[in-house]
Amino acid sequence: MANIGVRTRLLDRLVRLSPPALLASLYLIVILLGAALLSLPFANTGGVSIYDALFTSTSAVTVTGLVVVSTGQDFTLIGQVVIALLIQFGGLGLMTFAVFVLSAIGVKIGLGQRLILREDLNQSSIGDLIKLVRVILVVALTCEAGGAVLLLAVFVPDLGWAEGTWYAIFHAISAFNNAGFGLDDQSLIPWAAHPLINFVIPLLFIVGGLGFVVLADIYDSRNWRQLSLHTKIMLYGSVCLILIGWLTFALLEWTNPATLGELNLWGKITASWFQAVTPRTAGFNTINTGEMHDATALMTMTLMLIGGGSTSTAGGIKVTTAIVLVLATIAFFRKSTELNAFGRSLGLEEVMKVLALTVVSILIVFVALFVVSITHDGTFLTLAFEVVSAFGTVGLSMGATGDLDTVGRAMIMVVMFLGRVGPLTLGFFLATHSVARVRYPKGRVYLG
Amino acid sequence: MANIGVRTRLLDRLVRLSPPALLASLYLIVILLGAALLSLPFANTGGVSIYDALFTSTSAVTVTGLVVVSTGQDFTLIGQVVIALLIQFGGLGLMTFAVFVLSAIGVKIGLGQRLILREDLNQSSIGDLIKLVRVILVVALTCEAGGAVLLLAVFVPDLGWAEGTWYAIFHAISAFNNAGFGLDDQSLIPWAAHPLINFVIPLLFIVGGLGFVVLADIYDSRNWRQLSLHTKIMLYGSVCLILIGWLTFALLEWTNPATLGELNLWGKITASWFQAVTPRTAGFNTINTGEMHDATALMTMTLMLIGGGSTSTAGGIKVTTAIVLVLATIAFFRKSTELNAFGRSLGLEEVMKVLALTVVSILIVFVALFVVSITHDGTFLTLAFEVVSAFGTVGLSMGATGDLDTVGRAMIMVVMFLGRVGPLTLGFFLATHSVARVRYPKGRVYLG
Ligand SMILES: [K+]
Ligand SMILES: [K+]
Repeated sequence: MANIGVRTRLLDRLVRLSPPALLASLYLIVILLGAALLSLPFANTGGVSIYDALFTSTSAVTVTGLVVVSTGQDFTLIGQVVIALLIQFGGLGLMTFAVFVLSAIGVKIGLGQRLILREDLNQSSIGDLIKLVRVILVVALTCEAGGAVLLLAVFVPDLGWAEGTWYAIFHAISAFNNAGFGLDDQSLIPWAAHPLINFVIPLLFIVGGLGFVVLADIYDSRNWRQLSLHTKIMLYGSVCLILIGWLTFALLEWTNPATLGELNLWGKITASWFQAVTPRTAGFNTINTGEMHDATALMTMTLMLIGGGSTSTAGGIKVTTAIVLVLATIAFFRKSTELNAFGRSLGLEEVMKVLALTVVSILIVFVALFVVSITHDGTFLTLAFEVVSAFGTVGLSMGATGDLDTVGRAMIMVVMFLGRVGPLTLGFFLATHSVARVRYPKGRVYLG
Repeated sequence: MANIGVRTRLLDRLVRLSPPALLASLYLIVILLGAALLSLPFANTGGVSIYDALFTSTSAVTVTGLVVVSTGQDFTLIGQVVIALLIQFGGLGLMTFAVFVLSAIGVKIGLGQRLILREDLNQSSIGDLIKLVRVILVVALTCEAGGAVLLLAVFVPDLGWAEGTWYAIFHAISAFNNAGFGLDDQSLIPWAAHPLINFVIPLLFIVGGLGFVVLADIYDSRNWRQLSLHTKIMLYGSVCLILIGWLTFALLEWTNPATLGELNLWGKITASWFQAVTPRTAGFNTINTGEMHDATALMTMTLMLIGGGSTSTAGGIKVTTAIVLVLATIAFFRKSTELNAFGRSLGLEEVMKVLALTVVSILIVFVALFVVSITHDGTFLTLAFEVVSAFGTVGLSMGATGDLDTVGRAMIMVVMFLGRVGPLTLGFFLATHSVARVRYPKGRVYLG
């Protein structure tokens, strides 16, 4: 009886948490469960420690894809199925949760409004939310099933029906959820030139990374003009980022013998396409990431930081955040009274949000890089790359993660978790819900 | 006659420029004049090309202190006097100008107010401004003279009266203006343990780096409560940054044989004090910067980016900007309606300004680092350090600047110039003065 009482009180307390705190707690619980499962004898082939299992579980639930052991070699089929399920939960779980959390955070929090998140949630009808979640699940499973069928044509000829089918399913799930986990230790390098790999995999992770809000809006709208501001910014921003990344990658690496140099023209074009889309934030690679020039690594890190869309399976500060940052800067220098985009205005509270999100993101990356560089004597750039990859839940690696010691790996795990649960969510989680009651006289500071 | 006509029209156009444009133009003209002087035969000992002279002049006028030739060896006494004058102009010129520009920019630009800077300037009485400029000059020359007299005790015993006196004067000017130029190729390493070096030089560059607004306020006020918000933030922020930097540097480098390891306790304490204050943004060093751990370099880069105070001889995004960034983030997560500090409130337009300044700064550093890392195959960290040092007009170097090719050096020159003239000023310079006339309906985007 006492036991049940404790359990009820725990459950009670869990339910009473604000959505961000609930989300973080759920993720943590699933990560621990996943680690426990992955460290069981039937899940791995023997060489996986509890730390490795915890790292793998964190990487899977946060859909990052950084690894310290080989997914294909060190885990049994059961272990791989567990990883796929963790990825599915991590990707869709957040997508689903994002609808709850962001509809609460994104809409109603204006400066000067006193509110507690749960009050907002109660205002939305539960029926609507359940419908939304159902739509999310249908979209995800349809995309993954379609992707898996197409990928059969890639993997079955190489690996036979049994293994080929599992490869197709695993990679489709991993791709749609922007997880970046592969079964081959070389990621997708062995199939770098295959047209379907360069088409199906990116299509899956781009669609998964646009975000549910965008997909629903495109489904509902008949033409460009009907689309919401958010959708327009996302589509426009994604196309720009892809084109810039594609062109820059090709230009910088064209003659690098370790990346594009040895490929023919078609190979150069497709490989740079793939390398331009994967940092936001799929994490697969068809060339050796560690061999890129420093300038290319820097560009890739920027793309990883920006990431994909809100309410999506992608990480990063999000395309909309980056664009509002730029719009706000331009507006300030133009002494404009408001931010405008596609004939819609954005309030100043969006600027506050963008600023807060950017500051928290920079702080997380900085502190993590600081800690990792104290405890590990690796090349600074590869460490920075690894931390940014973890924060953006990207999973691309220049090779440092495997070499890190326990402290370094623990730091990467924390960063993956924060990167996934979201800096904004973290902030709400940590913050006290206070409202200024005293109005102070106006002060002035000189800046810049 | 035609010639005079052209000249008058040029002068006429120059005067009609907005203050930021005027400032940038003046800096450019002085840099070019300085480069011409430094490349003349009587100014250098023979090994200084016109590019070297241009780099040195840019570094001096922007009070950065990065060098590609030896200030003590490659320039004659006349050349060194020219450099000291360029530093004096660069430091005080901006300090003086900052009073004009910031009193225009800082005060009156609110969102939604239509204004052109010159209109504001005309509203201030010319008499006040001339008085301000006179006070600035008196403060500067008094500090420099006092510093030079004290530094005689350091340099005269080592170098004799003639050379020792010149060293004292040069270093006093260089220190107060946060220029970081030294006459010895090892900066201040030969005098690392001298108490006066660890006291007088930092005192000069800290006072010079607080900013004229703060100095005038401290002079006018009798106690802490009377001080303005800006002064309180500057003093509080500077003390925090110094203590954090001091402690962190000592902890990280305590056992590093190439930096603090070989020193005795007093040497460790004074050297880490010096290394903690110099990144903001003096640029002298008493230990070998290139031998620091990566984590220490990362912390130093952060301090270099933050820099000193507005209307000072220091660079960086400024202490107030960094603090408002943090305050705005905290305020957002607390859902506070306004930013408060020391019982004063800050408007949302400050947040816009801080955001714009931060975005422009990050863009400048990113683009420069990208370009430099394309053209130069150095270690990424040392290149990043060099770019940040140039942007913050710090002058600390891990050794890469000397190795850069022409493109890399040109990029560093551009960054020093932008870092000095100010990202904010640059923005005003580039921006068109438009005001939104159409009010768009409100849109919504999801962020984070
Ligand atoms: K990923
Ligand atoms: K300097």
